[in-house]
Amino acid sequence: MAAYQAPLTDMNFLLREVFQAERLFAGMPGTAEVNGELMAAVLTEAGKIAGDVLAPLNRPGDEAACGFKDGKVTTPAGFREAFAVFAEGGWQGLSGEPEFGGQGMPKMLSTLIEEMLFGANSSFALYSILTTGAALTLSRHGGAELQRVYLPKMYSGKWSGSMCLTEPHAGTDLGIIRTRAEPRGDGSYSVTGTKIFITSGEHDLTENIIHLVLAKLPDAPAGAQGISLFLVPKMLVGADGELGGGRNHLVCGSIEHKMGIRGSATCVLNFDGAQGFLVGEANQGLANMFTMMNYERLSVGQQGNGLAESSYQAAAAYAKERLQGRALGAPSDAGGASASGGAGASGGVGAADAAVDGAAAPIIVHPDVRRMLLTMRANIMAGRALSIYAASQLDIMHFHPDAAARQRAEGLIGLLVPVQKAYCTDRGFEACVLGQQVLGGHGYIREWGLEQNVRDARIAQIYEGTNGVQALDLAGRKTVRCNGALLELLIEDWDAFVEAAGPSLAVYEKAWHPARAHLQQATEWLLREATPRPTEIGAASYPYMELMGLNLYAFMWLRILQAAHAGGSTGTSGSADANSSDSAGGSAGADGSDSVSADYRDALAKTGAFFFARLLPRTATLLQEIEAGSATLMAPHASQF
Amino acid sequence: MAAYQAPLTDMNFLLREVFQAERLFAGMPGTAEVNGELMAAVLTEAGKIAGDVLAPLNRPGDEAACGFKDGKVTTPAGFREAFAVFAEGGWQGLSGEPEFGGQGMPKMLSTLIEEMLFGANSSFALYSILTTGAALTLSRHGGAELQRVYLPKMYSGKWSGSMCLTEPHAGTDLGIIRTRAEPRGDGSYSVTGTKIFITSGEHDLTENIIHLVLAKLPDAPAGAQGISLFLVPKMLVGADGELGGGRNHLVCGSIEHKMGIRGSATCVLNFDGAQGFLVGEANQGLANMFTMMNYERLSVGQQGNGLAESSYQAAAAYAKERLQGRALGAPSDAGGASASGGAGASGGVGAADAAVDGAAAPIIVHPDVRRMLLTMRANIMAGRALSIYAASQLDIMHFHPDAAARQRAEGLIGLLVPVQKAYCTDRGFEACVLGQQVLGGHGYIREWGLEQNVRDARIAQIYEGTNGVQALDLAGRKTVRCNGALLELLIEDWDAFVEAAGPSLAVYEKAWHPARAHLQQATEWLLREATPRPTEIGAASYPYMELMGLNLYAFMWLRILQAAHAGGSTGTSGSADANSSDSAGGSAGADGSDSVSADYRDALAKTGAFFFARLLPRTATLLQEIEAGSATLMAPHASQF
Repeated sequence: MAAYQAPLTDMNFLLREVFQAERLFAGMPGTAEVNGELMAAVLTEAGKIAGDVLAPLNRPGDEAACGFKDGKVTTPAGFREAFAVFAEGGWQGLSGEPEFGGQGMPKMLSTLIEEMLFGANSSFALYSILTTGAALTLSRHGGAELQRVYLPKMYSGKWSGSMCLTEPHAGTDLGIIRTRAEPRGDGSYSVTGTKIFITSGEHDLTENIIHLVLAKLPDAPAGAQGISLFLVPKMLVGADGELGGGRNHLVCGSIEHKMGIRGSATCVLNFDGAQGFLVGEANQGLANMFTMMNYERLSVGQQGNGLAESSYQAAAAYAKERLQGRALGAPSDAGGASASGGAGASGGVGAADAAVDGAAAPIIVHPDVRRMLLTMRANIMAGRALSIYAASQLDIMHFHPDAAARQRAEGLIGLLVPVQKAYCTDRGFEACVLGQQVLGGHGYIREWGLEQNVRDARIAQIYEGTNGVQALDLAGRKTVRCNGALLELLIEDWDAFVEAAGPSLAVYEKAWHPARAHLQQATEWLLREATPRPTEIGAASYPYMELMGLNLYAFMWLRILQAAHAGGSTGTSGSADANSSDSAGGSAGADGSDSVSADYRDALAKTGAFFFARLLPRTATLLQEIEAGSATLMAPHASQF
Repeated sequence: MAAYQAPLTDMNFLLREVFQAERLFAGMPGTAEVNGELMAAVLTEAGKIAGDVLAPLNRPGDEAACGFKDGKVTTPAGFREAFAVFAEGGWQGLSGEPEFGGQGMPKMLSTLIEEMLFGANSSFALYSILTTGAALTLSRHGGAELQRVYLPKMYSGKWSGSMCLTEPHAGTDLGIIRTRAEPRGDGSYSVTGTKIFITSGEHDLTENIIHLVLAKLPDAPAGAQGISLFLVPKMLVGADGELGGGRNHLVCGSIEHKMGIRGSATCVLNFDGAQGFLVGEANQGLANMFTMMNYERLSVGQQGNGLAESSYQAAAAYAKERLQGRALGAPSDAGGASASGGAGASGGVGAADAAVDGAAAPIIVHPDVRRMLLTMRANIMAGRALSIYAASQLDIMHFHPDAAARQRAEGLIGLLVPVQKAYCTDRGFEACVLGQQVLGGHGYIREWGLEQNVRDARIAQIYEGTNGVQALDLAGRKTVRCNGALLELLIEDWDAFVEAAGPSLAVYEKAWHPARAHLQQATEWLLREATPRPTEIGAASYPYMELMGLNLYAFMWLRILQAAHAGGSTGTSGSADANSSDSAGGSAGADGSDSVSADYRDALAKTGAFFFARLLPRTATLLQEIEAGSATLMAPHASQF
């Protein structure tokens, strides 16, 4: 497979021209120093780690997978050394609190680094992502002493983290967990229970692993209101913040054998009176986890986009090189003029219609190959933009001096995250499958790596709350329960953008109009029907999430197109003598001073046009599906399945 | 995973009540003896092989995969013994010519056996399917001597077969193959060249492997018109039809490491002056292969349906057993009455809304879980029906005494097969992914088998002509090139059915009406636009195939619903006291005398209602996509990808 390269041009363009991150950062004290030059430099350096260090370990890591023996997990060859390089570069603490040695970078930037990690090597990425999530939870809810002892070591990558939620009988439904925490009388607790599916629960990358564990206190209320959060280190730590207390009472019982992310250790952890420390208040464990979830879910959404990017790069390169058959109209590159007639048509390219020796053309000439590649590309750009947009709300929540702005961002992020998580991972998986399809049989064999991306992307639709649970969160808690108030915030943004946009976008705004109307109609339907019949929420949830996803992608494409138009000429046809064969089209240097090429802007304009013509119209069907209601879903008796 | 069980009830019901196979068979001399009793007995016995012999080898075969050393391929443990059982039972010759020891069974029946094989163990199935395909080609185009020597051994399963088409540079585009065949002067040929992706090209199941190889004669015309077909045995055979001529000059150079079907050997074969025998006339190789392709593609479509069935069985069982969360409205089984209010709604089932201890319900209560299961079930039944419908055309082509009927069937099968292959494998893959999703994290680990089904189903969208090539065949050769004449044949069938159908189907006919109109409009658009601009065929092809697929599934559901209604009461609501907890609902005994239960008919009616309400409406969007035309697809320059 073509080696993964971080899409620096796209990322710089989105951050700086589409979302004007510099202007936002300048207005917030905590981020005022993050200028365009710094962002470009961070992206460039991270891109080197992703492309040069992590990507080469991706396929070998999948082949080797994690090993398990006597409670110990060995990661694939090279992972230890790579994690050391990653940690020494300060990457693990990129978004950490400066007070404890973190670099305090905004999420708008770090979310792109996460996309790179997932795109280059999803298994490796998870060791970092889980540590980031655990540290974040600790930084928001942990006591000062816990923060002082643990955060610096986690930011430096010396220690890593895990999140221990799921139990054999309790996944989505955490209210029924059985893990118990008994007070020891010294302010700490004895934690006992079994956790499963624990990503990075045990491994050999770091000298200690800091587990954040959900458990119930003896006198806890039943259900979700009785869950507390505990920090349980693998190795006990002294007051001096150093190891030396020996091994805590927890062991890894086994690891899972999985479809993909085989270099990531997915562990069963048995806690047997392990010493733990309460994080936040008793019985507030789930609420405290929720603060973290928006970050984690955003990261998982980026797994979808990152792997899609990796597959796109490989599939586009293959399509331009692989000679097979000939164009339906034109004999060679189909760019621009090919739609206007040409040589005799070969109605169906069955084998008997195949080209004669030597006349084969690269498969990029075929409209259906282009359909696949453009679908991938259009969704990757929109998904990446949506991730930055969501990240900007997290940054406003965390850094903005104005309380009203923070509160508004908190509302918006609640709406955006379930869609970003579910829709980006659904489209990401789809893109990986399409990329594999472009390569035909070569996509199915291991050699090219496309099939690994499909396997690695699949988990993102499942973990961190299945996409069905995300959809239900969107339709229920984030829509019906607040009577559509969060969507109003989003629509404010949409209206403000449309009002400010120039006439050059009019044709796309018009194309967006029916999609917005479908969403509005679906929302009204949902608010009206769900009160008497709550089952309607579940029946509508999945298509409603997709309807919201398509509208958000349309909004992102409008923003991208506006920025593309603003910067230079973007003739939508012709460009017959494209001035660059660099498909990334980029020239944004590490110093951040250059902008993108006219050819890059033109390619974006064409991709956006494809999105509005070919992908967005699906909203009509989604509305129909929602309005069909729950009747046919609920009619069969359970025994009839 | 719940063990795969052949869906005998569905199969008997479709064959006998929906398609009234007995009536058709009675009217054709070659099939007159195939009555309902015989069909039921054959299905039952095949079901035992699939469930008891092949299914238990499925996961071990995936884990072990094929081995390769010094040109020899070892199949997973148990495959040899299972193939012997299969061959001794006469299954390999089921559809073979009686003259050479085959059982002469019609394709309508044997296609269901193939579905079982793929559902139980797709890797194993391929050894049988390739042998069937090679024998079929030989029986249609081989000379009498070749048939006499080879067919009995292939039907008995003593020897197996392979199809050698693809070369490293030539997949879809066979016109550019480089394998050469030189006359030896004794009527045989020396075949030299490299073939890749050869399924069952080498293995240890049989004492000989009969390769059918595409190659070019020295004086052959360039391109596809210069391809000939040769029979090249692995072991040379004497005139007495026995081995003893020693090893032919061909070796297996390596096997592929693949995403799935890992128990199936995918080989590189190097022919180095191997002795071969011309099959059919010189330079007619591709045309001769075409006769076979309709059979092979139909089989691959059944791989999609078979694996979908396997995943459905596992996912439905899991959904009825797994306790997690609670219903949005009702506290327990949501059948029938649950949509009508109930206890307080938990708007979004985030973790904090989870049920209290002990109150968890089986996840089948959730509308979104039902959406996934019903999508699987609705498409499996329609896909299986479409396969039988297509098979019936093959049977008419082969067995019918009336030449006009045979000709009509030949036209219809040409239209149906690309849709059946592409749409059933797309929906099959989707079903496997949905089944995995129902199990959440448990669907991602290897233990439950759902992830293997996803990997095994994926190849069916790629091999035997990618689904993109099928779509192009449909839109080009089968639609534009014949000016829509084949679709007219299909519409005759639709109109005849609708005219004969009773008023009980009126509501569904009405729901089908817009979908039919979308297909008609799309076809008119295609015929009008494709003549001046052939690129439009490729731009429209994929959504056109999906539009045709949805319409064919709708036609199938109408036929199923008619048969379901005809046989008993099918109240569409309530059925609160379903009289059977047997989800297959079946009671069609081996003697073929019993019919299905009222509960089974009721479940079918509900599943059909779901199809029309929730799945069929997508046709509107597909039409829009087609009418968007090729402009946005062709606009980007190749370098802009």
